[in-house]
Amino acid sequence: MAELFRFTLHATDGRARTGVIDTPRGPVRTPAFMPVGTAATVKGMKPADVRASGADILLGNTYHLMLRPGAERVARLGGLHRFMDWPHPILTDSGGYQVMSLGDLVKVREEGVEFRSHLDGTRHFVSPERSIAIQQLLGSDILMAFDECTKHPATHAEAARSMNLSMRWAKRSRTAFLERRPEGAALFGIQQGALFADLRRESAERLVAIGFEGYAIGGLAVGEGQAAMFEVLDHAPGQLPADRPRYLMGVGKPADILGAVLRGVDMFDCVLPTRSGRTAQAFTRAGTLNLRNARFAEDMGPLDPGCPCPVCARVSRAYLHHLFRAGEMLGPMLLTEHNLWHYQEMMAGMRAAIAQGKAEAFARDWVQAGD
Amino acid sequence: MAELFRFTLHATDGRARTGVIDTPRGPVRTPAFMPVGTAATVKGMKPADVRASGADILLGNTYHLMLRPGAERVARLGGLHRFMDWPHPILTDSGGYQVMSLGDLVKVREEGVEFRSHLDGTRHFVSPERSIAIQQLLGSDILMAFDECTKHPATHAEAARSMNLSMRWAKRSRTAFLERRPEGAALFGIQQGALFADLRRESAERLVAIGFEGYAIGGLAVGEGQAAMFEVLDHAPGQLPADRPRYLMGVGKPADILGAVLRGVDMFDCVLPTRSGRTAQAFTRAGTLNLRNARFAEDMGPLDPGCPCPVCARVSRAYLHHLFRAGEMLGPMLLTEHNLWHYQEMMAGMRAAIAQGKAEAFARDWVQAGD
Repeated sequence: MAELFRFTLHATDGRARTGVIDTPRGPVRTPAFMPVGTAATVKGMKPADVRASGADILLGNTYHLMLRPGAERVARLGGLHRFMDWPHPILTDSGGYQVMSLGDLVKVREEGVEFRSHLDGTRHFVSPERSIAIQQLLGSDILMAFDECTKHPATHAEAARSMNLSMRWAKRSRTAFLERRPEGAALFGIQQGALFADLRRESAERLVAIGFEGYAIGGLAVGEGQAAMFEVLDHAPGQLPADRPRYLMGVGKPADILGAVLRGVDMFDCVLPTRSGRTAQAFTRAGTLNLRNARFAEDMGPLDPGCPCPVCARVSRAYLHHLFRAGEMLGPMLLTEHNLWHYQEMMAGMRAAIAQGKAEAFARDWVQAGD
Repeated sequence: MAELFRFTLHATDGRARTGVIDTPRGPVRTPAFMPVGTAATVKGMKPADVRASGADILLGNTYHLMLRPGAERVARLGGLHRFMDWPHPILTDSGGYQVMSLGDLVKVREEGVEFRSHLDGTRHFVSPERSIAIQQLLGSDILMAFDECTKHPATHAEAARSMNLSMRWAKRSRTAFLERRPEGAALFGIQQGALFADLRRESAERLVAIGFEGYAIGGLAVGEGQAAMFEVLDHAPGQLPADRPRYLMGVGKPADILGAVLRGVDMFDCVLPTRSGRTAQAFTRAGTLNLRNARFAEDMGPLDPGCPCPVCARVSRAYLHHLFRAGEMLGPMLLTEHNLWHYQEMMAGMRAAIAQGKAEAFARDWVQAGD
């Protein structure tokens, strides 16, 4: 097999890195932000508009897609890319995180996880092998190993037990992946270990021994706070191979992302820009704004004067305020679009800053100005 | 004042006509379908996508806009076109129809109509003079006279009383309009008279005596059924000046529109394509489809194989089915877009057919095939 998946570093600045992940469906510029397309759609956005915002890659949720419309059905319909009209790269999570957030509906065993659907209560079972099969049926470009997201807070013993399970599952995920690997597809391992440095190190070593195309840092952004997360990130990325992409799952606020980039992380996903867009929260270079606020009722200015997005170019804060007050769909649509542009502008700025050796200054200025 | 508003007939076929209404904000090809932008947005559509569907003109609702965000506010924000990013022609209704549909919340007097807002119960008063002032504050290109939409069914006496009131209001509307007429703006009178031929004729004569840039046929599509409506339309358009546009308000289904075009009507508006789009109802050349129907779950074909719209070009019925089943915003967005294209394709086809002397055949084929 030709090496269709490849990570190339273009520049580093301290621990921050910029480069490109080549995939059979096109390049992903790093550091990269992946909009979340939970149910085969980035909520309220047409694919072409997601693309225009600067997104190279989307994240799809295995848990949601396996329940509706179903992985086999998506496969029969030609795969997720064709189904949702996104011909560019897609990363799928393993389903583990969302299954385990179902709480009482879940039973974790060595073999895998049994759970009831939040939609209709039907019983389902996901193992590392089934998770990989689902992701392959979806046609994912970057698959994630099936893991247990260790709950927070966890004792050292709890975190060790959970990490050990995830490492056994990582090995099984890898084996399943290699059995019928689509050309150019990649599988990422996920480091666990909660906030414990020794467990994080052990997890990294065991993943590297298995060998993956990339490595995720899991079990963070689960309520530990930015300081604790950054403490882990002061060491975790360095425990993972420098020549492979590093992905911090489920992160985050702009300041979280920039801080993680400065610590050596290359990839991110988060529902924040899209979910905020639906609840009238705008990210701007001057901080977050709630568009429902009465002070915007006659504000003729653009949402963010420094933003090049189509929304800021064409309509006023007053109009967005009106749309949210009137409960019009166009409000969430436009604000989601702006927020995705905001995130992608931030990533583009950070990539350029790294190349120029100004990563710290860029991150400091962006965070001080706004978020 | 230069004659900035002008109606030019290009061809007729029987009673059907095709031409163009020139306005200061651009031409409107007739027969024309106007998508409804109730609250300063065509629900779920970006203005550029409405435009791309073939819409030359939108309808805005005076009643909704006067309550939220308010006519004076829209004026302070630069007018409705700028506010909603639609630089093309806009027709505003007078508010009468919607005010009077409020039922118990309404009191009709000679002077005007007192009503309570459906939003917050606040008291409001609209007269012919206030309706025109609101429409001028919004910056409308085509304003409508303030009228009473006669309720259905109505006795001859009730219809006569109501028509007479509307004609007195039409005169007052015209006077108010001329007092501060924006360059190029037009005011249309509205014929009433319910289903009574003598009242329709009298109403037409009184409107023509006042003189308007165009004439609407009001009081139809209120529950009388297509046969009764067509019976009125067999005569009403001919009672109105041949050199002015004729507008059938609130109509309708494709077969209603085509039947009215064959009887000499030039303009239409209706919420049907947009509202249907939000409830999973698709208009296609093979009839209407409900996309929630399970038979579409694995239908890989386009929504309507004969449709040139971006939705039919890019996604499957199965995907649209999934979006509606999952409650995703993109479902209503895409189906609204398709339905608007369907309506505009129908209008474009009818315009071409009239020019070729094939209006009846086009209407028959379109209706037999689908709606």
